[in-house]
Amino acid sequence: MSYTDDLKPKPLNLKELNSLVSTMPFNHLLGMRVVRIYSDGISMEMEITPPLRNILGTLHGGATASLIDAVIGVSVIQQLGGRAATTVELKVNYLRPAAQGKVRARSKIIKIGKTLAVARAEVHDLHGHLIAMGSATYLLLLSSG
Amino acid sequence: MSYTDDLKPKPLNLKELNSLVSTMPFNHLLGMRVVRIYSDGISMEMEITPPLRNILGTLHGGATASLIDAVIGVSVIQQLGGRAATTVELKVNYLRPAAQGKVRARSKIIKIGKTLAVARAEVHDLHGHLIAMGSATYLLLLSSG
Amino acid sequence: MSYTDDLKPKPLNLKELNSLVSTMPFNHLLGMRVVRIYSDGISMEMEITPPLRNILGTLHGGATASLIDAVIGVSVIQQLGGRAATTVELKVNYLRPAAQGKVRARSKIIKIGKTLAVARAEVHDLHGHLIAMGSATYLLLLSSG
Amino acid sequence: MSYTDDLKPKPLNLKELNSLVSTMPFNHLLGMRVVRIYSDGISMEMEITPPLRNILGTLHGGATASLIDAVIGVSVIQQLGGRAATTVELKVNYLRPAAQGKVRARSKIIKIGKTLAVARAEVHDLHGHLIAMGSATYLLLLSSG
Repeated sequence: MSYTDDLKPKPLNLKELNSLVSTMPFNHLLGMRVVRIYSDGISMEMEITPPLRNILGTLHGGATASLIDAVIGVSVIQQLGGRAATTVELKVNYLRPAAQGKVRARSKIIKIGKTLAVARAEVHDLHGHLIAMGSATYLLLLSSG
Repeated sequence: MSYTDDLKPKPLNLKELNSLVSTMPFNHLLGMRVVRIYSDGISMEMEITPPLRNILGTLHGGATASLIDAVIGVSVIQQLGGRAATTVELKVNYLRPAAQGKVRARSKIIKIGKTLAVARAEVHDLHGHLIAMGSATYLLLLSSG
Repeated sequence: MSYTDDLKPKPLNLKELNSLVSTMPFNHLLGMRVVRIYSDGISMEMEITPPLRNILGTLHGGATASLIDAVIGVSVIQQLGGRAATTVELKVNYLRPAAQGKVRARSKIIKIGKTLAVARAEVHDLHGHLIAMGSATYLLLLSSG
Repeated sequence: MSYTDDLKPKPLNLKELNSLVSTMPFNHLLGMRVVRIYSDGISMEMEITPPLRNILGTLHGGATASLIDAVIGVSVIQQLGGRAATTVELKVNYLRPAAQGKVRARSKIIKIGKTLAVARAEVHDLHGHLIAMGSATYLLLLSSG
């Protein structure tokens, strides 16, 4: 991870981050929560509840994509101390279906520049199998502070 | 759109398709419904209700990605007469935020082969602005029939 | 295509554009040339010469990706009157192999904003078959003028 | 990396692989060569010669995309003991420009299934900076053997 900004913002801690995430309606609808903060990203969990399933009874691809978008977006916001950012593009590769239990997504921030941030994420099921991976580019918005 | 299969399945009509979509839990959770069937795809609508919003008050990128995945997946299933398919990869470009009203996604099937289907989709808001575009590859599963 | 910039630059004409493209080493190496300028994009051609083939004897996926990156990048530069831009991300879906003759790529600019441009492109072979489609995001650099 | 096939093919060694790569015209045109074979991928190098540059004097995005497609494709072929495969889709994120010296790409195979293989790759410049990352899906073709 590299910064091109001169001033590094103060990253949010787990309590601040969960407080922030609880105000995000869509992430709340899907039952996402932040599990851990790493130096280069975060991990978030989501339970495969019945509403998140597709017609085959497994986790819907849209729910997986939402988790990947969320874990990347929240990790960018975390690194930037709460500064808002918006998704420019998102790519997901689906590797195997997940039918039950929790899935956990781990983001890794690749770059935070002046205007863009890039990160990738992997999603594992409760057996430790990799079920999806993805990457996203975020546009950094003006600080609200 | 091109078929490499010798036998073209009978596409589902709007009634059959809405009946099928109503059994898809995640699409139901997000309030998606099929609006129209075209020769090369379908259109689906979704209301930007409060739970689908992000922290900025606009449609969450995950909800948009879910709509694009759904409109492409359902159009593949429609063309194949109900045969199941699963997402291999999904790509979304976000073009502008949408804050209220309905958004409408239109899929265009590009190719249906023996094992893979490829399609793209565009999402417009109620003002007719293009808010996102995407593409996806689907793996065709064995017919349940 | 939409502009958020107040001042619309003067788009380059075909002669100016071919003069510019001839100074682009990699596009020259692959034998690309601009065929036509549209209001919302351009078309470029490339001959499937032996060096552009893969081990199967068809056009290499990297050559196709290069053509898609080039046709999108050149169309952004064309619209912006020569202003430089750099690729942020590129996505290509390969639909069928192409073995001989020319391939033609057509770009469609989706959005040109203050900092980012988004476009997509389709590549057809000499039989009119769609062999690939793609999209890209470009970061607009400061004007050299 | 996981196999769903019952029979694991015998992976190619470095000599066999370089012999194979030397017969790939487009990879030869761009000056690519295999440097090393890992248990889960390979690394390939390419010199930023003048023909591989864009108008800004840095490595062209198409050349970078070609290297990522090649390093992933060759690593899939290597794992499968020479069996042919063709690119289904390719995604590249560009992180910083590279102006001179060699660039090195490292692939990591994520999954090799019955019909599809998925891998990702990172490209570093001679200073160790990450200049691009990408992922690709390959369709496995019938064995020529």
